[in-house]
Amino acid sequence: MGMNPLIESGVNSIWTSYRDQMESVEVKLRELLTGIVPLASEMTSYIVSGGGKRLRPLLMVISSRLSDAEGPDPILLAAVVEMIHTATLLHDDVVDNADVRRGKRAAHQRWGNQSAILVGDFLYANSLWLAMGLHSHEINDSLTLACKKMSEGEILELFLDGNLDATEEQYYNVAACKTATLTASTCRLGGVLGGVSDEEKNALDSFGYFVGMAFQVADDALDYMASEEKLGKTLGRDLAEGKMTLPLIHCLSKASEPSRARIVSKIGSGLVKNGDLEEVLQLMRETGSIDYSLSRAREFTRKAQESLSCFPDSLPKQHLLSLSEFVISRET
Amino acid sequence: MGMNPLIESGVNSIWTSYRDQMESVEVKLRELLTGIVPLASEMTSYIVSGGGKRLRPLLMVISSRLSDAEGPDPILLAAVVEMIHTATLLHDDVVDNADVRRGKRAAHQRWGNQSAILVGDFLYANSLWLAMGLHSHEINDSLTLACKKMSEGEILELFLDGNLDATEEQYYNVAACKTATLTASTCRLGGVLGGVSDEEKNALDSFGYFVGMAFQVADDALDYMASEEKLGKTLGRDLAEGKMTLPLIHCLSKASEPSRARIVSKIGSGLVKNGDLEEVLQLMRETGSIDYSLSRAREFTRKAQESLSCFPDSLPKQHLLSLSEFVISRET
Repeated sequence: MGMNPLIESGVNSIWTSYRDQMESVEVKLRELLTGIVPLASEMTSYIVSGGGKRLRPLLMVISSRLSDAEGPDPILLAAVVEMIHTATLLHDDVVDNADVRRGKRAAHQRWGNQSAILVGDFLYANSLWLAMGLHSHEINDSLTLACKKMSEGEILELFLDGNLDATEEQYYNVAACKTATLTASTCRLGGVLGGVSDEEKNALDSFGYFVGMAFQVADDALDYMASEEKLGKTLGRDLAEGKMTLPLIHCLSKASEPSRARIVSKIGSGLVKNGDLEEVLQLMRETGSIDYSLSRAREFTRKAQESLSCFPDSLPKQHLLSLSEFVISRET
Repeated sequence: MGMNPLIESGVNSIWTSYRDQMESVEVKLRELLTGIVPLASEMTSYIVSGGGKRLRPLLMVISSRLSDAEGPDPILLAAVVEMIHTATLLHDDVVDNADVRRGKRAAHQRWGNQSAILVGDFLYANSLWLAMGLHSHEINDSLTLACKKMSEGEILELFLDGNLDATEEQYYNVAACKTATLTASTCRLGGVLGGVSDEEKNALDSFGYFVGMAFQVADDALDYMASEEKLGKTLGRDLAEGKMTLPLIHCLSKASEPSRARIVSKIGSGLVKNGDLEEVLQLMRETGSIDYSLSRAREFTRKAQESLSCFPDSLPKQHLLSLSEFVISRET
C-alpha cells in the first residue's frame, strides 16, 4: 500500500513547519544522552538515532504551538516522551525476543538482555527526573499515570497473547494502555505548558488518545499487508506465538467452525509455515478482517479530529488534523 | 557470626516502638497490591511477603517520627520505597539470573523473565505515580533522582563485574548509587514530611546515605562469612561470575603476585570448585580482607551516627543510631 500523495505532501509540510523545533528536539536528545553512563548513551543513541517516526515529539511540539507555549519546555518534554517511548521499546524487545527494531538488529541482541533491561530502567528514571524538574504537578501526574498505564498494558498484552478467546474490547484496552495513554498525555502536556483552559486540555488529551488508538490499530492491520518477505519473517512469527491483534481476533470470530479450528491449530504451535500463513491471509480476505480493522482505525481518526472542535481554526490545528490521517497510512 | 545480643534486643525494641505504623505499612502494601493487574499483584505479594528486613520502611517511619510528621503520608511513602526496592530486586534477579531470593525461588524463575521485567516496570511506575500524588516537588525531585541513580548504579555494576582492576572507589560508587541513594532519599523524605529545617533534612539524607553504605559493605563482607553450604552455592557462583565486591577487590590488591595470578585464573572462569573457594578464603584471611571490609562498614556506621548530631537527643534518634549498628550485623 503506497502512501496517499496528498497525505504525504501534507506530512512533509507539517515537518517543514516545525523543522527548527524538531531539530532542537534531536539536539536535546543527543545532549541528554551524552554525559550519562556510557553504555546507556551508546545503546540509546543506537536506538534513538535508528529512526522512528518521532510521532510523540511532533505531537508535543504542535500541541504546544496550538496552545501558544514557547521556549525550551516543549523541546525538553518532546525529548522526554521520546525517551520514555524508547525505554518501552528496549524492554518490549527483550520480552518479545525481537530480532529487528527500526531496520537494525535489536539492541538486546547486540548488547545482551541485561544491558537492555538496565538501560531501559535508566531511560525511564532519567526521563521522569527531567520532567519533574519543570515543577508542575499537572505534568507529573499526567506523565507518571501514563507510565503506570503503559506498564499495565504490557502485562495485559502478555495475557492476551495466545488467548484464542481474546475479544475486541480486550485488544482495545491493551492498545489504550500501551499506546494511547502516552500520546494522550503528550498532547495534554502541550496544553499544560501553554496554560490553556481545562476544556482545551481535555480536548488535546482526547485527540492524543484517539490518535494513539488509530495508530496502533492501523499498525496491527498494516502488518498483514506487508511485503511477502516481511510477512514471512514477522507475521509468521507473530502467528506462531499467538499475538492476538485485531485482524486475527476478528477473523477468528467470523470464520466458520472448521476454518477457525484449522487456524487455531496453527496459532501458538511455535512454527508457522508459509503455506499456513497464506491460508490465514486467504481466510482474512474472506472475513474482511483487514478491511474491518482499517475501518476501525479510520473511525478513531475521525474521533480524534472531532476532539479538536473546541479550538478555532489555525495552522497548528490543521497540522494535527493532517497528522491524524498520516498515522493510519504508511509506506510498506 | 551471631548477632550481638545487646543489638538484637535493641532491634526488637525498635520494631516494637513502631509496631502500629509498621503494621499499617504492611496493610498499605497489601492494599496497593490488590486491585492492580492480577499478575503484578500475585508476583509482588510473593516477593514482598517473602520477608526482607523492611529496612527502608523502618527508616521512613522513624525519620518521620523524629521530624514530627504524622498521619498517613509516612505510611504511604514507606510502602512506596519498599515497592521501588522490590522493583529493583525483580530486575536484578533477571539480570543476575538468580535462583533464590529471600529463601524462596526467585520470581523470574517461577513466572518467567518476561513477567519479572514487566511487573518490575509496573512497580516502579505505580510507586512514582503514588508518590507524585502527594504534590510535593521536594519529594518528587528526591525520589526520581534516587531512581535515576539506582539505575545508573546497576549499569555501573555490570561493568565492574569481571573487571579485575576494579578499585575500591569504583566499588563504593556502585554501592552509593545502587543502595545508598534510596536510603538517603528515604530518610530525607521523613524530614520533608515533618517540615524540618534544611540543615536537618540534609542531616537525615546524610544519615540515610551512610547507613546504606554501611549496610551494602557489610552485606558483601558477610557473604564471605556464610555457612559452608551457602558459601558453595552463592559465593562460588559470584566468584565464577567475577562479582567484584570489596573483600575480593582488597584481596587482589594485597595478595602477592603469584597468589593474585592464581585467583585471577579462577575468577570469571564460569566454574569455581569448592577447593578453589577454600583457597580464596584462605588468602583473604592472610590479607585480612574481610576484617578490612567490616572495619569500613563500621566506619560508615560511625559517619551515619555523626550525621545526626544536629538533632537533640530523643527516642527516635536513639532508634536510628541503634539501627545503624544493626545493619552491619546479621544472623548467618
